Amino acid sequence: MARIAIVGLGIIGASFGLALKRAKLDKTEIVGHDVSYDAVVAARKARAVDTVDPSLARVVQGAGLVVLATPILTMREILGEIAGHLEPDCVVTDTGSTKRQVVSWAAELLPETVAFVGGHPMTGKDTAGVDGPDARLFDGRMYCLTPTETTPGDAVEAVTSLVHLLGAKTYYLGPDEHDALVAPASHLPLVISMALMTLVGRSSGWKDVSRLVAGGFRHVVINAGNNPRMSRDLAVTNAENVSSWIDLLVEELRGYQRTIATDEEETLRLFQDAFDAHREYLAGTLCSDAPPSAAPMPSLGQSFQQLFVGQGLLRRRGQRGAGDKEI
Amino acid sequence: MARIAIVGLGIIGASFGLALKRAKLDKTEIVGHDVSYDAVVAARKARAVDTVDPSLARVVQGAGLVVLATPILTMREILGEIAGHLEPDCVVTDTGSTKRQVVSWAAELLPETVAFVGGHPMTGKDTAGVDGPDARLFDGRMYCLTPTETTPGDAVEAVTSLVHLLGAKTYYLGPDEHDALVAPASHLPLVISMALMTLVGRSSGWKDVSRLVAGGFRHVVINAGNNPRMSRDLAVTNAENVSSWIDLLVEELRGYQRTIATDEEETLRLFQDAFDAHREYLAGTLCSDAPPSAAPMPSLGQSFQQLFVGQGLLRRRGQRGAGDKEI
Repeated sequence: MARIAIVGLGIIGASFGLALKRAKLDKTEIVGHDVSYDAVVAARKARAVDTVDPSLARVVQGAGLVVLATPILTMREILGEIAGHLEPDCVVTDTGSTKRQVVSWAAELLPETVAFVGGHPMTGKDTAGVDGPDARLFDGRMYCLTPTETTPGDAVEAVTSLVHLLGAKTYYLGPDEHDALVAPASHLPLVISMALMTLVGRSSGWKDVSRLVAGGFRHVVINAGNNPRMSRDLAVTNAENVSSWIDLLVEELRGYQRTIATDEEETLRLFQDAFDAHREYLAGTLCSDAPPSAAPMPSLGQSFQQLFVGQGLLRRRGQRGAGDKEI
Repeated sequence: MARIAIVGLGIIGASFGLALKRAKLDKTEIVGHDVSYDAVVAARKARAVDTVDPSLARVVQGAGLVVLATPILTMREILGEIAGHLEPDCVVTDTGSTKRQVVSWAAELLPETVAFVGGHPMTGKDTAGVDGPDARLFDGRMYCLTPTETTPGDAVEAVTSLVHLLGAKTYYLGPDEHDALVAPASHLPLVISMALMTLVGRSSGWKDVSRLVAGGFRHVVINAGNNPRMSRDLAVTNAENVSSWIDLLVEELRGYQRTIATDEEETLRLFQDAFDAHREYLAGTLCSDAPPSAAPMPSLGQSFQQLFVGQGLLRRRGQRGAGDKEI
């Protein structure tokens, strides 16, 4: 019996379990752990895992694959706690929204017999308490994997198989590169939402302002509704990139401020440029080349099956007659 | 035959016409003007006006009510051009998103025999090219009116009747007060959207970043899609307030930057506060008292009918047996 352990049974962890169950892997047990009783009850009710165990050490014992799906800062503690209980050749992966520190903690804390492959599913469902777990959460989504030079190739292949099993598309990049890119794509918008919401919502004039607030405000503050702890964790583990982009944003805002106050023609040019950039963004013309699915992908081996799920996945692939691209 | 002139036949102006037509006013002609041939054709096709006239002077001649629905900076020119052609006791109103400068231009340029009442319908449909005119555009919306100490009371009453005829709710405030409130409610979110879109969308790394961009980014940049000229006009006519709020936003962002880099606990407190403010905002608990509909409203007189539409509106009110609150 192969064993997959999921540590953290929030939306991502529980959806991970459901997506694995949807794959109907043979002779595979999916075990879960969460410190929250509510999360455990919800995951069991959703049948996201076969069993749960309040002992972190017991959950990972015998597992060929361990998935960490907790807030990022918690992963450091968990990596330390599970390090002595992992099987040799176990593959550990995570679902955190920043990768540099997690990958660094894994290198520091895990034994050399264990492989770590950082992962970041781009599910867009990090809003607290809005949705329940969903077996289709990863379908068609981009799933970043951040192997390093020292990551064993068969572990990368195995996690690649796993990502495809979930229905997602792999996108390989280095941990530093990943964090540099998600800062403007995700963390800067988060900070902006929070800053506007707090600044205006906590201002003395809010009661009067709120009567005139419409969609333009509502959209910009939307990320302030993200889970505060998860948000905090990704911000502090990507603080340098976030800080650099705040510098650039402040510079940009200062430019608007000066121009709006002094030059009507130039202001129109700025507004037109933003409008054009937005239109190009929506039309996808700014990112037309090298789409994510064309990112380099290792050839699939049998490592995933051997390591995690016996012959279950292999048999499924044979049944479907699928190639290496989609499982 | 009463005459209502609409200058500017974009979405707001054409919807104004359609909403007036929906009211089926007796013996009332709605005439329109726009410098754009396309806008004229579209307004005629939508039957938003009874006739159009390429001469601004002729359009306003004989009109009891003139509605300016052009970009804000254009209003100054138009006020100057129509000033000599308006009937004595004509009421002029506008639909611009800032009020201080428009009200000031009207006081400067219009003859004393003409009354001006600044207006701002909060329709939320200032996105360029997305929607066509809509007779229900103003239904249930807030409609700011900004009379001053020198505005004749019967003109305020008349425009109040007009707003209710459109299906909107009046909200009275001074021009300066209006502009101070819409800056954080609307103009700051606009500048934020533009700054993020331009900064990231025009950055050298955009192609790579765009692969990882998801909903959190898309929502924050949404206002960059607003009509650039209209956006420019409201920004430059509210430059002082916009500038003050940019200062405050920069200060707020600097605070996040420092805290994220140095203090995990305090960062969590900031994120939790933004989350709480957002939840309170969505729940409406931050603006529970003094809802817009409770704003002071002058009692309705017969001024609207006498000035603009003969007995049409009065008859409608009588038919419905409506009180002063809703028509």
